[in-house]
Amino acid sequence: MQIAIPVFDDMTFLDAAGPYEVLIRVPGAQVTWAGLTMDPVRCDGGLRVLPDALLEDIPNPDVLVFPGGFGARPLIHDERVLSWVRGAAQSAQWVASVCTGALVLGGAGLLEGLTATTHWTAYDTLQELGATPVPDRVVEHGNLLIGAGVSAGIDLALTLVSRMHSDDTARKIQLAIEYDPQPPFDAGSPAKAGDALVAAVRERDFS
Amino acid sequence: MQIAIPVFDDMTFLDAAGPYEVLIRVPGAQVTWAGLTMDPVRCDGGLRVLPDALLEDIPNPDVLVFPGGFGARPLIHDERVLSWVRGAAQSAQWVASVCTGALVLGGAGLLEGLTATTHWTAYDTLQELGATPVPDRVVEHGNLLIGAGVSAGIDLALTLVSRMHSDDTARKIQLAIEYDPQPPFDAGSPAKAGDALVAAVRERDFS
Repeated sequence: MQIAIPVFDDMTFLDAAGPYEVLIRVPGAQVTWAGLTMDPVRCDGGLRVLPDALLEDIPNPDVLVFPGGFGARPLIHDERVLSWVRGAAQSAQWVASVCTGALVLGGAGLLEGLTATTHWTAYDTLQELGATPVPDRVVEHGNLLIGAGVSAGIDLALTLVSRMHSDDTARKIQLAIEYDPQPPFDAGSPAKAGDALVAAVRERDFS
Repeated sequence: MQIAIPVFDDMTFLDAAGPYEVLIRVPGAQVTWAGLTMDPVRCDGGLRVLPDALLEDIPNPDVLVFPGGFGARPLIHDERVLSWVRGAAQSAQWVASVCTGALVLGGAGLLEGLTATTHWTAYDTLQELGATPVPDRVVEHGNLLIGAGVSAGIDLALTLVSRMHSDDTARKIQLAIEYDPQPPFDAGSPAKAGDALVAAVRERDFS
């Protein structure tokens, strides 16, 4: 089972690293990092990762997981990427996105008329692309799974494993990555964080 | 503020990617990936990442976060790494580990006589290194923060941000990475998963 995760400059790497750490443990699965070039990708924050293959080397993955980040936004208008996404989505058994990776699926026309989610700062763009944004952690439509921002990729991937393999495999992987979350604060969504924090984060003010 | 995260072959990348995604958002912080060589590191599952510097290029980081994975175990006996850890820990304002990164701190003598945590499969090794294992998500002793397995790095890093900066900065970062976890199952700790899943994961049987 070939799982393609695209990598691109200015991506948010945790969007991809969460699903990666879950999916590499699925029996028979192989995760391939699919680049727009074979050069190292420079993620948000400076981390550099190496693609394993070009997008076009993997025209028919079994699973596609599109991560997000600031670097995802220009891809909404990148015909090469959108055309690859359409092709891969047609043959893949499962298509998923994390965070603003949903915008790329939307740009490819895959979310037209559907409810969907993305990072909470990107609901307006998601709507412009024809979807109806909802604040769910994971939105499912048949073989399409759409996750919320960044850390939601872990929840999305465990859900995906339960659908494509079994609940018990998902539980075993949850135990292996000791995913028993205990956040020291309860500010992980706009509704819980409140208006002041929401306004600050929109301005990228973390002081 | 220089934050050093060591990278090494067969590391579990999510151990590091969780803290990274949190810490890059701290005002004035710079995360540096510190390698044993400058060659690409091959993580568990095949992901390849590039170090930014050698360990010895960063003798005095402000913050040290040691991740784990199968590749951490040989480092318990690697005098070069242990000597660097001892030096960095002496000058750093904050020292942290995720998962079996705790074993490396233990190997360097930093956990002698202290309660500590690690991935649940490594409690025995942690004990052999002089610490008393406890199943807490994050264990704190002054400027030393020790996290449980893999995904605990996110909880650890948010705790660290609240200590070294402010609760509000931690909350803003939690909102930015939309860390409002909603696991589809409740099997993230040995106590919750039960004996059968624990036995399977110990054998790396995810079928």
